[in-house]
Amino acid sequence: MVTTATIFVGEFFGTAILVLFGCGVVAGVTLSRSKSQNAGWVAIAFGWGLGVMSGAYIALPLSGAHLNPAVTLGLALDTGEWAKVPVYIVAQILGAIVGAALVWLTYLGQFGNTEGPYLGIFSTAPEVRNPAQNMVTEIIATFALVFVIVATGQNEGLTLSGTGVLIVALLVVGIGLSLGGPTGYAINPARDLGPRLAHAFLPIRGKGGSDWGYSWIPIAGPVVGGLLGGGVGSAVYSMI
Amino acid sequence: MVTTATIFVGEFFGTAILVLFGCGVVAGVTLSRSKSQNAGWVAIAFGWGLGVMSGAYIALPLSGAHLNPAVTLGLALDTGEWAKVPVYIVAQILGAIVGAALVWLTYLGQFGNTEGPYLGIFSTAPEVRNPAQNMVTEIIATFALVFVIVATGQNEGLTLSGTGVLIVALLVVGIGLSLGGPTGYAINPARDLGPRLAHAFLPIRGKGGSDWGYSWIPIAGPVVGGLLGGGVGSAVYSMI
Amino acid sequence: MVTTATIFVGEFFGTAILVLFGCGVVAGVTLSRSKSQNAGWVAIAFGWGLGVMSGAYIALPLSGAHLNPAVTLGLALDTGEWAKVPVYIVAQILGAIVGAALVWLTYLGQFGNTEGPYLGIFSTAPEVRNPAQNMVTEIIATFALVFVIVATGQNEGLTLSGTGVLIVALLVVGIGLSLGGPTGYAINPARDLGPRLAHAFLPIRGKGGSDWGYSWIPIAGPVVGGLLGGGVGSAVYSMI
Amino acid sequence: MVTTATIFVGEFFGTAILVLFGCGVVAGVTLSRSKSQNAGWVAIAFGWGLGVMSGAYIALPLSGAHLNPAVTLGLALDTGEWAKVPVYIVAQILGAIVGAALVWLTYLGQFGNTEGPYLGIFSTAPEVRNPAQNMVTEIIATFALVFVIVATGQNEGLTLSGTGVLIVALLVVGIGLSLGGPTGYAINPARDLGPRLAHAFLPIRGKGGSDWGYSWIPIAGPVVGGLLGGGVGSAVYSMI
Repeated sequence: MVTTATIFVGEFFGTAILVLFGCGVVAGVTLSRSKSQNAGWVAIAFGWGLGVMSGAYIALPLSGAHLNPAVTLGLALDTGEWAKVPVYIVAQILGAIVGAALVWLTYLGQFGNTEGPYLGIFSTAPEVRNPAQNMVTEIIATFALVFVIVATGQNEGLTLSGTGVLIVALLVVGIGLSLGGPTGYAINPARDLGPRLAHAFLPIRGKGGSDWGYSWIPIAGPVVGGLLGGGVGSAVYSMI
Repeated sequence: MVTTATIFVGEFFGTAILVLFGCGVVAGVTLSRSKSQNAGWVAIAFGWGLGVMSGAYIALPLSGAHLNPAVTLGLALDTGEWAKVPVYIVAQILGAIVGAALVWLTYLGQFGNTEGPYLGIFSTAPEVRNPAQNMVTEIIATFALVFVIVATGQNEGLTLSGTGVLIVALLVVGIGLSLGGPTGYAINPARDLGPRLAHAFLPIRGKGGSDWGYSWIPIAGPVVGGLLGGGVGSAVYSMI
Repeated sequence: MVTTATIFVGEFFGTAILVLFGCGVVAGVTLSRSKSQNAGWVAIAFGWGLGVMSGAYIALPLSGAHLNPAVTLGLALDTGEWAKVPVYIVAQILGAIVGAALVWLTYLGQFGNTEGPYLGIFSTAPEVRNPAQNMVTEIIATFALVFVIVATGQNEGLTLSGTGVLIVALLVVGIGLSLGGPTGYAINPARDLGPRLAHAFLPIRGKGGSDWGYSWIPIAGPVVGGLLGGGVGSAVYSMI
Repeated sequence: MVTTATIFVGEFFGTAILVLFGCGVVAGVTLSRSKSQNAGWVAIAFGWGLGVMSGAYIALPLSGAHLNPAVTLGLALDTGEWAKVPVYIVAQILGAIVGAALVWLTYLGQFGNTEGPYLGIFSTAPEVRNPAQNMVTEIIATFALVFVIVATGQNEGLTLSGTGVLIVALLVVGIGLSLGGPTGYAINPARDLGPRLAHAFLPIRGKGGSDWGYSWIPIAGPVVGGLLGGGVGSAVYSMI
């Protein structure tokens, strides 16, 4: 039975695993004395996608596997059920903090052998800093994410507990490959805020600043994009 | 229920997402100050394939997910139903235009930091320009695409709404890897014409010419190849 | 209904598509003025694997999709039915010849801009030439291929017409990645002999020799390995 | 029927194939005169993951496909059935030894053309040697492995004999990409000890030492991580 407790536990562990894999692949590809150093963007896109896959199978029986406040808000808008929204979001952010801390522990020796700053392992940053433009990129990418997730629910041959999660994971691989270049594709406020908080509070030597000036974009962009994707998806499939 | 309106909406959004992912990965790999710059051909092939996957799940419940005039024409030849063909094709081209425009918005900062011309992000171009030869390449690649799509419909264990779309997506990855080298594998007239129109009309600084002299090949080649693939597929499976 | 005619047609087209994708990815990665030039071994392994996927879905409803004389012989040994074996093998070799010729047509412009010899696009060649050693490599790789194919038939949740073919395709990706380094993993006599014949007879300028001295190894090795894999598989699963 | 004999045979062959693919891809990527030399970390991660896929389909009907003492111990702790544990573990280690020996035979020509030491092809080694830290890395990675495996069993749409094995294989790809950088992700005592024994006993010229000083970490870390992952998984899913 899905209860407040199972929601909390599912979203916490699911998002922790998602961030462990996601920030983990970035640590491996960017830090020195890592066997996966310079493994490239294909590695990063698959690492994040398979993190979604792993976290989602963990969370699905417990919470339905949102793992992303943008998804939680989009679904609440659709269903009108807002009561559990805070539980979902708090668990997602706490899970993301823990996942990021586990990445630090996993790669402790590599952090010690690479000069900082390290924020790029934890949170997203734009290649060309321009708030409006970066917002647009995050909105478009999250719009695609949530619209396709809504669409998979309309395909009778897919169930989330079957290959549906795999399809969503591959969707995230695709978003990374295709739309991740400008901002690093947060597309999930918890995935960005949680690790940024971890970066701010963990005692990592030479870690550099946590760039709070940018931090609202990977929150606001995905929320706007997710609501748009959910709204367009709902409208479109109400035709059938 | 599938109506003219659902066909239009399904093909429009499905092709827009397909082109957003497909042209998006090329933008990311080729533009400066993109995190995915130089991610390589494997990234491009998976980006396009996962764009097909994403667009197809969107369109499937609404229109059957053709997303490609060559597929629409091949199926019409097979079924004898031509009435809806113009709706499909117009929606596909409009969707492709919008998808290409979204790529421009997503990568606006990168366009501003890379010298043009940019046509290669939008449309296909041959490495060795030779109309007859380029036609042959597009015909063979689209023949393979449509023949295998027809074949998947003969495999009882697959349904398009289940893992069938995933198989078609991986087929497109395979075509990209194996047959994409000479011309950039249009294999879809809408995928080439739509973005080419977007390139021609969007106010992109330093964008260069739209190469209309080549534009008929990625239309004619896929149409011929698709009809051949559909025809051979129909003939072959009429044996059983 | 599976007849001699459907077997011929299925194996012919299936193997042609398999070789079109497989030799195609090698052409794209190795020839000059190809967009996929230097795409690397991951591209090659996925190109061959997705060629198996595509060819197998084509052939499955018609012939059961052997696409490989080593598989045909292994199954005949298991079932005791030898009557159709020659039809399978002849169709596989003819299909492989046609697939290789289509690769040449697809990449005609690239062949014209790269100096030969070109045999490496068509057939396998060892990096370190040593017949006994090369035989052992091919035997081990084909043993793994056929043993795992037999094993998938023992897994109730898989059907070849469903995701079973996808699993076999990924198996071929894995064999390429893991066991392909020394000899280029023929693991299929038709895949090697057909393109070698095409190389010998096609009028390709500067193509070099067809290396018939090596040609028996990618025939004998896979046959021995396939029989071993089929035999061990049969023995092992007769325990349950 | 699953008996002691089928368990032994399933775990033996399954682990042998797993190690053949896994150590095989490392051999191909690192040895000279291999076609897959320098294929990169994405190749390695997929090689190991597809080795898990291949070995698991072999073993599943015979033994349930543990292929890993950490998984065997985690399940025993959960079910309380310890009687068959020794059979599983002995068969896994023997299979891993044989798989590693087959890698040597497959790449014999490459070993002869590359200077040693070769231990990195057989067993894991940390990039930054620090026992406590290396333990933590292996514990976290194996925790993720076993927790997600337990979770897949809670997703009704997955069965191990269907796409469940594929999901576990992709999970292993993800662990390799995301968590493999510091220690080479043993996450399986048999996968490390078996090939280390093969390295110690095979007459490989210039092979170097077998680094027994490190060998306890890829045994102890995965066992601790697996028990933690199994324990947390059991606790979490007992909520529903």
